[in-house]
Amino acid sequence: MDFALFSLILGVLSIIYSGFAFFRVIREDEGNQKMREISHYIRRGADAFLRREMEAVLAATVVLAILILAAIGWQNALSFVVGSLSSAFAGYLGMQTSVRANVRTASRALKSGIKGAFDIAFTGGTIMGTFAIGIALIGISSLYMLFRTPLDIIGYMFGASLISLLVRVGGGIFTKGADIGADLVGKVEAGIPEDDPRNPGVIADNVGDNVGDCAGMGADLFETYAVTLITAMLLGYLLEPIRRALGTMAVTLPLMIGGIAVIATIVSIPFVKLRNPKRIMGAFYNGLIISSIVAIALNAILIYGAGGLETAIVSKAGLMVSIIAGVLVMASMYAFAEYFTSGSYGPVKRIAQRSQTGPAINIISGISSGLFSSTFPVMIIAVAIIAVLLANGGLYYPSVGFYSGVYAVGIAATSMMSMAGMVISVDTFGPITDNAGGIAEMAGLPKEVRDNATDPLDAVGNTTKATTKAYAIASAGLAALSLFIAFVLELPPSELDSLQIFNPLVLVGLFIGAVVPFLFTSRLMEAVDYAAFSMVNEIRRQFREFGILEGKGNPDYEACVDIATRASLKKLLVPALIAAGLPLVVGFLLGPTALSGYMFGAIASGVPTAVWMTTGGAAWDNSKKVIESGLYGGKGSDAHKAAVVGDTVGDAVKDTAGPAVNPLIKVIMTVSVLFAPMIVLIHLL
Amino acid sequence: MDFALFSLILGVLSIIYSGFAFFRVIREDEGNQKMREISHYIRRGADAFLRREMEAVLAATVVLAILILAAIGWQNALSFVVGSLSSAFAGYLGMQTSVRANVRTASRALKSGIKGAFDIAFTGGTIMGTFAIGIALIGISSLYMLFRTPLDIIGYMFGASLISLLVRVGGGIFTKGADIGADLVGKVEAGIPEDDPRNPGVIADNVGDNVGDCAGMGADLFETYAVTLITAMLLGYLLEPIRRALGTMAVTLPLMIGGIAVIATIVSIPFVKLRNPKRIMGAFYNGLIISSIVAIALNAILIYGAGGLETAIVSKAGLMVSIIAGVLVMASMYAFAEYFTSGSYGPVKRIAQRSQTGPAINIISGISSGLFSSTFPVMIIAVAIIAVLLANGGLYYPSVGFYSGVYAVGIAATSMMSMAGMVISVDTFGPITDNAGGIAEMAGLPKEVRDNATDPLDAVGNTTKATTKAYAIASAGLAALSLFIAFVLELPPSELDSLQIFNPLVLVGLFIGAVVPFLFTSRLMEAVDYAAFSMVNEIRRQFREFGILEGKGNPDYEACVDIATRASLKKLLVPALIAAGLPLVVGFLLGPTALSGYMFGAIASGVPTAVWMTTGGAAWDNSKKVIESGLYGGKGSDAHKAAVVGDTVGDAVKDTAGPAVNPLIKVIMTVSVLFAPMIVLIHLL
Repeated sequence: MDFALFSLILGVLSIIYSGFAFFRVIREDEGNQKMREISHYIRRGADAFLRREMEAVLAATVVLAILILAAIGWQNALSFVVGSLSSAFAGYLGMQTSVRANVRTASRALKSGIKGAFDIAFTGGTIMGTFAIGIALIGISSLYMLFRTPLDIIGYMFGASLISLLVRVGGGIFTKGADIGADLVGKVEAGIPEDDPRNPGVIADNVGDNVGDCAGMGADLFETYAVTLITAMLLGYLLEPIRRALGTMAVTLPLMIGGIAVIATIVSIPFVKLRNPKRIMGAFYNGLIISSIVAIALNAILIYGAGGLETAIVSKAGLMVSIIAGVLVMASMYAFAEYFTSGSYGPVKRIAQRSQTGPAINIISGISSGLFSSTFPVMIIAVAIIAVLLANGGLYYPSVGFYSGVYAVGIAATSMMSMAGMVISVDTFGPITDNAGGIAEMAGLPKEVRDNATDPLDAVGNTTKATTKAYAIASAGLAALSLFIAFVLELPPSELDSLQIFNPLVLVGLFIGAVVPFLFTSRLMEAVDYAAFSMVNEIRRQFREFGILEGKGNPDYEACVDIATRASLKKLLVPALIAAGLPLVVGFLLGPTALSGYMFGAIASGVPTAVWMTTGGAAWDNSKKVIESGLYGGKGSDAHKAAVVGDTVGDAVKDTAGPAVNPLIKVIMTVSVLFAPMIVLIHLL
Repeated sequence: MDFALFSLILGVLSIIYSGFAFFRVIREDEGNQKMREISHYIRRGADAFLRREMEAVLAATVVLAILILAAIGWQNALSFVVGSLSSAFAGYLGMQTSVRANVRTASRALKSGIKGAFDIAFTGGTIMGTFAIGIALIGISSLYMLFRTPLDIIGYMFGASLISLLVRVGGGIFTKGADIGADLVGKVEAGIPEDDPRNPGVIADNVGDNVGDCAGMGADLFETYAVTLITAMLLGYLLEPIRRALGTMAVTLPLMIGGIAVIATIVSIPFVKLRNPKRIMGAFYNGLIISSIVAIALNAILIYGAGGLETAIVSKAGLMVSIIAGVLVMASMYAFAEYFTSGSYGPVKRIAQRSQTGPAINIISGISSGLFSSTFPVMIIAVAIIAVLLANGGLYYPSVGFYSGVYAVGIAATSMMSMAGMVISVDTFGPITDNAGGIAEMAGLPKEVRDNATDPLDAVGNTTKATTKAYAIASAGLAALSLFIAFVLELPPSELDSLQIFNPLVLVGLFIGAVVPFLFTSRLMEAVDYAAFSMVNEIRRQFREFGILEGKGNPDYEACVDIATRASLKKLLVPALIAAGLPLVVGFLLGPTALSGYMFGAIASGVPTAVWMTTGGAAWDNSKKVIESGLYGGKGSDAHKAAVVGDTVGDAVKDTAGPAVNPLIKVIMTVSVLFAPMIVLIHLL
């Protein structure tokens, strides 16, 4: 049977499942009048933001499609458009779902408590989980069946990652600008609680949760999934000896491994049930473990069942090691992220303890803990690569083992994608419950609804967000590495001789590439700072002019949404140019040799940058929560005030700057791979 | 004439000059009884710390010397001991000088105002400036005349950089632990002014300025100077075609270019006079500009005067481009550092403005500004390398131009060293004036002494510290790059084939190497956090038990010095092992291929890490000063409180973590180059 056709069918199946999940959520009750009204505000704000963001996305798509059409060819231009629209649509749908699931989760929490609320929120998550992988499978398999070569699908990767970057960055600036701005004036200056409806920034803050966490993470994981699959397909095509040994299967096997995610997800969803409200994370671990087991089993059937996979240079045992390595990397990343970000372990407890000596020491120990944590994912990825290489052909370059080794690394990255559906479902759960809590507060639902249902669910959401980011970064590291090698394989053999690491041009490229994540994250933090500053001024103005706190006037929510929207769109261009433009400048100016250094430099410093920011940020957040639970004086103590400072800094690094490094790396890789033939052409002139 | 002998003579000349400067300082008046007493305390504290640190340093030297003797040979063991003792002695003497110059500066400030104080403080700085380069020249030329091959002097580099790392790290932890601890309890909790003699931590704080800034920066710049010279000598030796073309001169030319620093420094010192107390930085710029002009002129005479430098692959014009490139890099780094750290320009003003919205936004904009700034040094270095390569042989590796190009990059790095004497003199000025201010405060000198003399001098010290760090990092980047290539040239030709950047082992090495600066700085920040926490507890205990604030008892300064000493020595081991041990683990376990990736990964992420931390930290510091000068409410305002938080975080990153990355990179390079033959041997077994 044709693996590509099979993947297409699996993709359609996934979309159908997603539709059923959508109707399961939509038929739920939306709650009382007040809840509907608030939900309506959030939805309208989200629509307003998304409409304008999508205009920018469409404009970028059209311009770039024309450029690709002229420079590369219609095949990649078409792939680009499909990839970019799929990415945009995945983000759009994720958000449309979550703004509907949030109010229904709140309503269920009111009616039947935490178990019911959990059920609706998770079902909401599965809509996104199954839709994202479904649409990716449909797009990639159709394009592959049309062109029969992955070289023509490179545009899809670029489209998916570029749009994911735009949605991530735009959403990240919006959400944290709104969040920090609303908190600084509301909680700190005016002394009103979080999510108080008198705060003009409160709707923008809730819109932001959807815009940043749902649309942003949705587009990001969709992109991770699609790019990883296509990269492994590309390796199967470009690694000559592998293609000769495996034939078409070299290219379609990764597609099939990715397709397994559909079955693994759908089979394991029913196991995610909240039995013990004290162990919410346990329900997710059930789902993830079952999803992993199903994935390993199906992959084993695939590898041992399919004919022609045991050749002189590829072995079934070696491929199975890759599959298992991928699953182990995922498990290690979850354990790693939980250790460094959960309030139950040393690192977070230490930051909480240090907060007693004031905000400065809180910040120092947060940065220190974040930087320290970045060592582990790198080591995990390094060990996985070495293990996969050893099992598949040996460590050394000038040998045939190089080809099977590199292909096996691509397969290991794809194996991580076999659990992608479940990971996305769990992740989308976070912002839905976060919003449900906000709606419960704003609608004045009884305090127990928050205390016993939405708050515990939301706290778990913090952990799932951190673990998902760790998963995304690890898989991005492996996929980017494979893409980097795909880029090298695209170069003419004459260029390969100059790719020695001691070639000064390679070194200069590496040097410049390694500073890009620093430059890029600095611009995002500056943007958050700018957006928050604008929000602060607007909220202060409304308080002053409308007399909201004195009960004289009503807040103008839309003005705040508008400010955050404009700030985020304004600050979108520079990061996008850094990501997609700089590699082309380096490539066309200094040639493919320097560009290869540049690409890897960006991966090597990008992965630890992404990790320190996301785990450090989550650790700050949870160390505040540890203090709020009563330690070191609890809420309102000096330690708590210090922890709030760390939490706010953490917001900017963990929700805006850090996670955007993942699509940054991908955009650098995909734009380079896409334009490689042209760069070589110009360079040889 | 033999360049090596000539350099030796220049080295002796430099030491003699240093001796004269020392006596010029020492014959100055030490001031009144109170001042002598305080100065005595600081000196005793510094001695206590240094004695124990030197014990640790000696122990490390003995153990490693035996290891090198057994593994490499007696020549490198001897070189190692000479290098390591020279480094220790440079740090030791720098500190002994500054603890004598500080009280005399304060005394002169009292008697004859700012101009006299400037004169003594700068003369104190020149002791260190001329001594450091003198002892390096004597050591390197003697060893070279003894062995006649730079391969046997590699040990000197490792010794110099390892000890510099220990002194930097130990001093950095001591100084910031003491500083932050004393400030948190004294200024923030007890509300007494900085340098109030009732604060038990105040002597430790002042000891720290000498330990961190004088001994630390002294050993660091000594190491930068020595390593840069030997690296270029090594390149002249290992680049076969260059050695064939230039003969012995390939090796001795860098030594001679370094030796020019002696004349350039001594000639330009008299020009550093404070004419206008409003333009203190101008006096230094005079010295630096004259030093640069003299260096360029002497280098031109050297290059155009010496016979045999115009060959088929080396050109005099090309070498002059390298010389000028080195000077331009230095000038650009000064301009860069001043723009990003001085209160007169946008970046610092912006952080000050953002401080109005509280400490969190202050931190976010400081990190953002620091990360952003790291782009520029990388670009400056990249442009310089490309220019030097273009002027000396072309950009591409598999060509003869590679050899002349790489050699020319080494010469450019050495050219930066022609101004090293003046740079070190200016830098040592900083801690001397900082201490002089402390002594003036503690001895209760009239307020005008601080306001009109020591405070303005100290403020400039902040800028010179930042510019010196930028200079050190840029030269470290160039030198490390050259050392990296020296490492590659040491490998057998069969290994070179596997050094392609797309070799998975190279990539794994790069990946691990790039995370090392993150890991290393995280440990240093954790150490500062630990030391500060211990200090806070001790100072609180003394306040409580002795009743110091109530005037019932006297503070026990020595107990605080002891706590900071113990904390810094305790936290020395792990960073040292990361720096010197990890490369050996990677080298012996994964082989020279992975190690080469590791080395360059550490450079590529290390340089931006060092930059963001040092410039970001200085920007925080000066944004606080901007507010203290009266902006946004001035001292005591909310904006000021927010800026104090940023300043404290900045202390840890700019004086401990950031600057230690420079010796970190060097230790990684030198230990790898030193052990390369053995790593290759084991690997080929």
